[in-house]
Amino acid sequence: MLPFELAEYHERVKKTKEKMVAAGIDVMVIADPANMNYLSGYDGWSFYVPQCLILMLDREQPIWVGRGQDANGARLTTWLDEENIRAYTDDYVHSAVKHPMDYVADIIKAEGYGDKTIGLEMDAYYFTAKCCKRLEMKLPNAKFKDATLLVNYVRIIKSPREIEYMKKAARLVEKAMQTAIDYINEGVRECDVVANIYHSMISGTEDFGGDYPAIVPLLPSGEKTSTPHLTWSDEKYKRGDTVIIELAGCYKRYHSPLARTLVLEPAPAKVHDLAAVVVEGINAALDFIKPGVTAAEVEAVWRKTIEKSGFKKESRIGYSMGLNYPPDWGEHTVSLRPEDNTVLQPNMTFHMIPGIWLDDCGVEISESFLVTENGCEVFANFPRMLFVK
Amino acid sequence: MLPFELAEYHERVKKTKEKMVAAGIDVMVIADPANMNYLSGYDGWSFYVPQCLILMLDREQPIWVGRGQDANGARLTTWLDEENIRAYTDDYVHSAVKHPMDYVADIIKAEGYGDKTIGLEMDAYYFTAKCCKRLEMKLPNAKFKDATLLVNYVRIIKSPREIEYMKKAARLVEKAMQTAIDYINEGVRECDVVANIYHSMISGTEDFGGDYPAIVPLLPSGEKTSTPHLTWSDEKYKRGDTVIIELAGCYKRYHSPLARTLVLEPAPAKVHDLAAVVVEGINAALDFIKPGVTAAEVEAVWRKTIEKSGFKKESRIGYSMGLNYPPDWGEHTVSLRPEDNTVLQPNMTFHMIPGIWLDDCGVEISESFLVTENGCEVFANFPRMLFVK
Repeated sequence: MLPFELAEYHERVKKTKEKMVAAGIDVMVIADPANMNYLSGYDGWSFYVPQCLILMLDREQPIWVGRGQDANGARLTTWLDEENIRAYTDDYVHSAVKHPMDYVADIIKAEGYGDKTIGLEMDAYYFTAKCCKRLEMKLPNAKFKDATLLVNYVRIIKSPREIEYMKKAARLVEKAMQTAIDYINEGVRECDVVANIYHSMISGTEDFGGDYPAIVPLLPSGEKTSTPHLTWSDEKYKRGDTVIIELAGCYKRYHSPLARTLVLEPAPAKVHDLAAVVVEGINAALDFIKPGVTAAEVEAVWRKTIEKSGFKKESRIGYSMGLNYPPDWGEHTVSLRPEDNTVLQPNMTFHMIPGIWLDDCGVEISESFLVTENGCEVFANFPRMLFVK
Repeated sequence: MLPFELAEYHERVKKTKEKMVAAGIDVMVIADPANMNYLSGYDGWSFYVPQCLILMLDREQPIWVGRGQDANGARLTTWLDEENIRAYTDDYVHSAVKHPMDYVADIIKAEGYGDKTIGLEMDAYYFTAKCCKRLEMKLPNAKFKDATLLVNYVRIIKSPREIEYMKKAARLVEKAMQTAIDYINEGVRECDVVANIYHSMISGTEDFGGDYPAIVPLLPSGEKTSTPHLTWSDEKYKRGDTVIIELAGCYKRYHSPLARTLVLEPAPAKVHDLAAVVVEGINAALDFIKPGVTAAEVEAVWRKTIEKSGFKKESRIGYSMGLNYPPDWGEHTVSLRPEDNTVLQPNMTFHMIPGIWLDDCGVEISESFLVTENGCEVFANFPRMLFVK
């Protein structure tokens, strides 16, 4: 069932250990579900209870820790040996007395790491404040270091197989976006459009099906387009509505996000103007991208291009993405924004989404792309324009 | 757009403040998205960046804090006045320098609560270890108390409107479950079944559509039924497969979960035996439920009923649920298990899911129910049995 060769997992663990050594960390508690998947293959909807990998410098394999009933999931989806699959009993779950991190602390002590330097993903989803406090309490002789994003930065350069999966995800999002554009019409309910989008993205193609994306389809319409993260209702579309459609195809947890905007005419002229500006800005920024330029320089090209229009965008225009679980397909490493001087390298992958939200409407048009040897390659093949009906 | 009367939100805030007073807490930082929705109405897929409500004893309304681009979402979905919608700028997002909780701390100080007792949801999803550390660092004169589940325990008794929404969610899950049972067959791909399930649960009925459930459809098949939380693949079902189907309908973020198991004969006799035992156990436990009995007593009835079969279940058989966001529809308050002596009261709502997972197979059959004045009422009307094809 492993989606990658064993050698690729070994390489990922090796790179992670190198970063641990550089950071002076002896053992990492890795709770980010995407990082757990990246290093071990583990894939299950069990991140609603505490779980983690414990990666120690002197052990070849990480130790998977999770709930008893999920241990068979680890046996089925990871490359780890039986001795490295450790499950806590059910009385640790949602208990006022016991906490799964007590069990993690016991393992760390038993393995001789109780007085070593422990790296924690302090700002990772699902690594709650209490997870941290319990480890600190149970391991009084350990030294703790914030290792948020340590593994995420290993993930930033994609392997050929990862890129292949993202290209498959792009086929899924093309199909789902076309479904959205086809179905949205006056008198149609938003929920019926989303039902068809889901059907498209998950049934996929004859050759492969789709996985659940880390974010549900975002389809604000009308005045709700003034903000990007509202989901659908069972209201019907009306003439004059603007509809933002932000989706991702997902294949083996790898994403290819894409946003487009559609108007049911008559739309305000402002929406047409905004869309033209966004497309011009994206075109200029994509043209500029090649290895060696920085994230900040990409954003500057966008900003300079749209400056003359009078529209402004205060937020970042994109971010690194790929493998992930809810609630986000972003990797939280590089952002395309003025403060980020990361140098782009081949096989980095981004979602460029320079959405602009005004007081009463907004437009999102986006592209996911791969940095290549000489420039960049857009994942989805879908007209980069405002759709008008 | 509010799904509840203003008076209901006021009542929820009042009850929360009463619990704060009882716990000696002056101000709560409420980061659990379900608790944010419960108190303010806020509804958006923005919990992938830090956000919260700040609830102060001497202010009528909570203060919503979120990212700039989501402020219009708060304006559109909450009952809060403009002065109580506070947004941080985009340079706080996924930054190595700034953190959104710095902004929260600034508000707490400015409102005169910098040296008061602050309640934190230490074990809530999305309230990361770093969120906590930043508040502690920025508010050195405050006293912090763990207030995990304080609001969740207010949510435990449902209002008539909440129950109405859960009944609508039950109509959605009946429809989606029927779709699953109808479509699963030899030679059909798992992803195509899930595509149809999604279509069913989201297009809903002519009268209302469905929202996204807090957990994706869980459909382990074959040996993957030995564990509950694996999702689908694009493999085809085979003769002899057992398929577990765990779904929830969701209406305005309120859930009605339901699990059933289906076999494509010839199935091992063990699966038939297991299903018969699970159904008998559920029947006995549901018959026993009425106000005044405890969660532990309900579990004991189940355990005693199945004891003679020789099968064992080590994990809890159910939990309180209702309003929620990914990754869980459970409320993390009451569990139906030996250690939980909570007394059941009218208008509590539970998912009873006594799944049993053996080494090579498993069975899940579940019911969501409402505690009534004299007993309990099951939400979904769906045959409680093993489905055989």
